[in-house]
Amino acid sequence: MKNDQEYLLYYREKFNKELLDFIAIPSIAALPEHSKDVQRAASWLKEKLFDVGVENVEIMETGGQPAVYGDWMHAGNGKPTVLIYGHFDVQPVDPVELWDHDPFTPTIKDEKIFARGASDDKGSMFIPIIVFEAIYKSSGSFPFNIKFLFEGEEEIASPKMPEFVSNNVDKLKCDMIFSADGGQFSEDEPNLAVGFKGILGFDIEVIGPETDKHSGLFGAAIANPIMALTQLLSSMKNKDGEITIGGFYDEVVPLSDKDKAEIARVPFDEKQYLELTGSIGLDGEAGYTAPERIGARPTLDVNGIWGGYQGVGTKTVLPSKASAKITCRLVANQKPKEILKKIENHVNRFLPNGVVGKVIPLQDEGDPLLIPEIHKSTDIARDVLRNVYGREPYMIRVGGSIPILSAFYKYLGVHATMFAFQLDDENWHAPNEFFRLSSFYKGQEAYRQLFHKLGSISS
Amino acid sequence: MKNDQEYLLYYREKFNKELLDFIAIPSIAALPEHSKDVQRAASWLKEKLFDVGVENVEIMETGGQPAVYGDWMHAGNGKPTVLIYGHFDVQPVDPVELWDHDPFTPTIKDEKIFARGASDDKGSMFIPIIVFEAIYKSSGSFPFNIKFLFEGEEEIASPKMPEFVSNNVDKLKCDMIFSADGGQFSEDEPNLAVGFKGILGFDIEVIGPETDKHSGLFGAAIANPIMALTQLLSSMKNKDGEITIGGFYDEVVPLSDKDKAEIARVPFDEKQYLELTGSIGLDGEAGYTAPERIGARPTLDVNGIWGGYQGVGTKTVLPSKASAKITCRLVANQKPKEILKKIENHVNRFLPNGVVGKVIPLQDEGDPLLIPEIHKSTDIARDVLRNVYGREPYMIRVGGSIPILSAFYKYLGVHATMFAFQLDDENWHAPNEFFRLSSFYKGQEAYRQLFHKLGSISS
Repeated sequence: MKNDQEYLLYYREKFNKELLDFIAIPSIAALPEHSKDVQRAASWLKEKLFDVGVENVEIMETGGQPAVYGDWMHAGNGKPTVLIYGHFDVQPVDPVELWDHDPFTPTIKDEKIFARGASDDKGSMFIPIIVFEAIYKSSGSFPFNIKFLFEGEEEIASPKMPEFVSNNVDKLKCDMIFSADGGQFSEDEPNLAVGFKGILGFDIEVIGPETDKHSGLFGAAIANPIMALTQLLSSMKNKDGEITIGGFYDEVVPLSDKDKAEIARVPFDEKQYLELTGSIGLDGEAGYTAPERIGARPTLDVNGIWGGYQGVGTKTVLPSKASAKITCRLVANQKPKEILKKIENHVNRFLPNGVVGKVIPLQDEGDPLLIPEIHKSTDIARDVLRNVYGREPYMIRVGGSIPILSAFYKYLGVHATMFAFQLDDENWHAPNEFFRLSSFYKGQEAYRQLFHKLGSISS
Repeated sequence: MKNDQEYLLYYREKFNKELLDFIAIPSIAALPEHSKDVQRAASWLKEKLFDVGVENVEIMETGGQPAVYGDWMHAGNGKPTVLIYGHFDVQPVDPVELWDHDPFTPTIKDEKIFARGASDDKGSMFIPIIVFEAIYKSSGSFPFNIKFLFEGEEEIASPKMPEFVSNNVDKLKCDMIFSADGGQFSEDEPNLAVGFKGILGFDIEVIGPETDKHSGLFGAAIANPIMALTQLLSSMKNKDGEITIGGFYDEVVPLSDKDKAEIARVPFDEKQYLELTGSIGLDGEAGYTAPERIGARPTLDVNGIWGGYQGVGTKTVLPSKASAKITCRLVANQKPKEILKKIENHVNRFLPNGVVGKVIPLQDEGDPLLIPEIHKSTDIARDVLRNVYGREPYMIRVGGSIPILSAFYKYLGVHATMFAFQLDDENWHAPNEFFRLSSFYKGQEAYRQLFHKLGSISS
């Protein structure tokens, strides 16, 4: 029998075809009319896992979209248990008229697979499955204990997954986690994500008169809740872009010179970044570069604001209330609940006279993650990526938040390592999403090396 | 033949019945389905004016709702020409289920006429017509030249009337103007309005990225237009409630001790005022009492604000833009166009980095009015009110703006004197509007005395 490397080459066409079949299932989690397709994708996965030799395969209820679980736990004593994560749901396809091909008729052109979900995340998450297949089928065994968990609601922000993880701690417990969702910096530049921001979402409501009043008769004598809200919000940041909420930065892990050097090593093209946004200039907390701010500094962003009359022309109303919707992106070691308290204190202290103010916490809350400097799965991944790409990976801190990773850390005590091969120019969440075949193949080699390295561990 | 006083008493029932007929016409200017009723009210008025001996009576096109004009110009040399103003349109009746009677079936109960428009303004505007009738029919002549102008769109803010006045300067030119829209302080306390605020309306739009962006990926590195807008708006007022736009107060006529004494003489019940608004406290420019601020100090009020996501829960968006709708209430001698320039300068100077800001002027613009200390029609009205009520009228400055009065001053060069008899507890713009019969009768005596005084003038 061929070895695993030969197996992957020999069956390349079969794997490509299987991936296209998988991608063709329109498993859009956001749209109720596609809930059967999400189920179909789960069933397809279940069958594939079963076929390649994974055991205890099941479709699990989460209270939301289904998850697929399977494991192979027959490695010898002292071998690690490793959880592989990915997601099989995809984004909606609108505006569908901007696609060059039907989004669910996967089309290979110029060595790229064009289809919704090809890059995010079906292409990447399929890789560890077929690498397991190659090793298991070619050798008759597998060198460590492996668990697969694939979710079906990542694209709708995983509303039920944290609870699902907390309810299945025994089933999911492991020594390391690799996420087959994530990506690399470019075709020939690898990266590893070592930081993720946490999140805290809340509304602020400011209430003045009981009902809207005539601004001429009342505007001069009672407080205007919109003006009070703008004063309150602008009291939260100074001209240097620093957040002025008392104690906001107290728990923030400061950036060391080494951290700054790691961040500075990652290419950042200011001109291109500005073109991407259409903004006239960079802006943010003084004393930090834009990449430092994006990756490693907490933020306070007003996501929405409303109050009074929003129509055409003038309505001379003194509105009864005004509201703003805010999210803070937090970094290690800020705690969402403590930050919320500090914000409430600030609102109590800086609310202008004559109005009532309320802070209304929203469901969204997630701890920031910062992978420790010495972290086994990340160190192993770094070695593999260095070997496969022939250069040192960029160590990246991500400005966004990934709820499932927070849940893994919170309930399983394990920092996941992102190990995935999509590239961020592949039109995720947009028309004409595609996945490079070269990434598919390079990912297979990387996972093959990763799995062998993991298998060589013994405690 | 009876004299005019006897005439008014003799025909009291007839006048009451005529007023009820007039009020029964649902002349709601705001609702297209009632445009025929506005026309019917105009026709009713035209006929009434013609019947009582007014000449050159016509329904005039304004480009909006019709106006009704008539005059009697046969007084001798040296006699003044006086314009009488009022409006025959009314507010909508919703919520109609809160009315005790059908709003357009006028019902007399407890010496009050209950119906939409009874108080605002049909009851008051009908008075000078029947007083003209009483004098003219009882004496066969009239002691001065009189012009009547009644508009049909006051309740929708007179959009076409300023242009109408400017197009009819010759027809409307006069020595004095009395407005039969306005009101008295209470059943036994008269007042005269000597100041009206001007108005300036504009939107401010602040633009950041070209489209909404992910707040996690971009929030730390480019400016947030909502935050920028709140900073800009809060830079326009300080903690003392003073407007900090450079030069904003330059042209404001300061309040003399005498002015302050006049304002202080007007009863102001803070507790009742706060109960009326439901606000927790008074608020406004430091160094001035609430009545001083309401009547005689300029304001800047945010009437509306919007931007980003306004729905339930969190959407981690860095919005592309944010807008606010603002009106300034101006006092003599501020000029709307000059204030607009000062605001544009302020926006240019205080706009935070990283965003583009625009000031978008709205149609609304009106000069403030302050009746000169020695002003013939006001002095005459004061004498009459003192005589009829047996006490000195309060000299009141109104926080609101009355577009038609600004237009009269702008195009005819005449400051109007408010001479009307509704009271502000009569549910204007609300269910169960009513007009006191006692006010109707007292108004007739007041207009009778006013007309005789005007007739005694000779130059």
